[in-house]
Amino acid sequence: MPVTEFTIQTPRRDAMIDITAEVNGILRESNSGEGIITIYCPHTTAGITINENADPSVTHDMLRQLDEMIPWSTPFYTHGEGNSAAHVKSTLVGCSESIPYANGEMVLGTWQGIYFCEFDGPRTRRVIIST
Amino acid sequence: MPVTEFTIQTPRRDAMIDITAEVNGILRESNSGEGIITIYCPHTTAGITINENADPSVTHDMLRQLDEMIPWSTPFYTHGEGNSAAHVKSTLVGCSESIPYANGEMVLGTWQGIYFCEFDGPRTRRVIIST
Amino acid sequence: MPVTEFTIQTPRRDAMIDITAEVNGILRESNSGEGIITIYCPHTTAGITINENADPSVTHDMLRQLDEMIPWSTPFYTHGEGNSAAHVKSTLVGCSESIPYANGEMVLGTWQGIYFCEFDGPRTRRVIIST
Repeated sequence: MPVTEFTIQTPRRDAMIDITAEVNGILRESNSGEGIITIYCPHTTAGITINENADPSVTHDMLRQLDEMIPWSTPFYTHGEGNSAAHVKSTLVGCSESIPYANGEMVLGTWQGIYFCEFDGPRTRRVIIST
Repeated sequence: MPVTEFTIQTPRRDAMIDITAEVNGILRESNSGEGIITIYCPHTTAGITINENADPSVTHDMLRQLDEMIPWSTPFYTHGEGNSAAHVKSTLVGCSESIPYANGEMVLGTWQGIYFCEFDGPRTRRVIIST
Repeated sequence: MPVTEFTIQTPRRDAMIDITAEVNGILRESNSGEGIITIYCPHTTAGITINENADPSVTHDMLRQLDEMIPWSTPFYTHGEGNSAAHVKSTLVGCSESIPYANGEMVLGTWQGIYFCEFDGPRTRRVIIST
């Protein structure tokens, strides 16, 4: 189970960046037949999710709805950095995904892509992959 | 780590379908001793979760509360298919669960069952299992 | 992939308890080189998450925001035990985390700790670890 990583630059406070191609590239280099690939985000104000990668309106609507549910400012946040909303989004979206693969291909559905979710950017972020 | 799958028919727009028995059956057939079983949903408007399987009021209340938090219609959704809420629910619930097993038995707690969560049904859906 | 467990006592209805040291201890005892460690919660009103462990205001704000989104009492909950909110929080936070490790060390980020999330305490709870 080799562990590798890459970095990405996120463009703004909230963004979903499709990293499916990067993950596929690492899986192919690993020459693994069958197993589980884990995509892991080592940050506390970001996450990893799997969702539709065909129509960009889906990620737009998702980030907007998350902002409705988890407002950036509330009267009760006490964390001095002012980014508590990003921490909550990180925990709810989750910081990893585990995907089975067979014959060197992830079992992603037709419309599924893997997204790095930025909730407190722009920043340089790491993505860790274990195959 | 063999990968297998089965299909289910979901009954309505929002539903939680207990798939614990199907997953247990696949684990027993795999003759695996110890490891991690991953239950994976290859769809972008559905998910997999683990929660109480004793009292059906729990799943009723959960689907109702998710609808409160993530309304089907909002003024700001832009996705043409009109099912953005289902995509958001999928990302928040998550599309997989990974469960340790030992002696061929998952370590599920007394009250835990594995649920396929439909958020844009009724549809025919696939569930992928890696042992 | 040996499976082991420990128990914790949670202090109140909602709490996040840092279990990073316990998980690290189990990983070191297992003498594992590379792989995935899974931390699993066998309860339906609790969860496992990874988030900041430097400033305690983050967990305070997170529990408070979850309560805003998922109120303890609503007119539409039907579950007789009265803890439907805890079940919803459990499903949204998730009942496990899977973390790659290499050279016997988890790839946790600088600010990341592993938390047991209690949503219906105080109780004695189990945490199951598979390395």
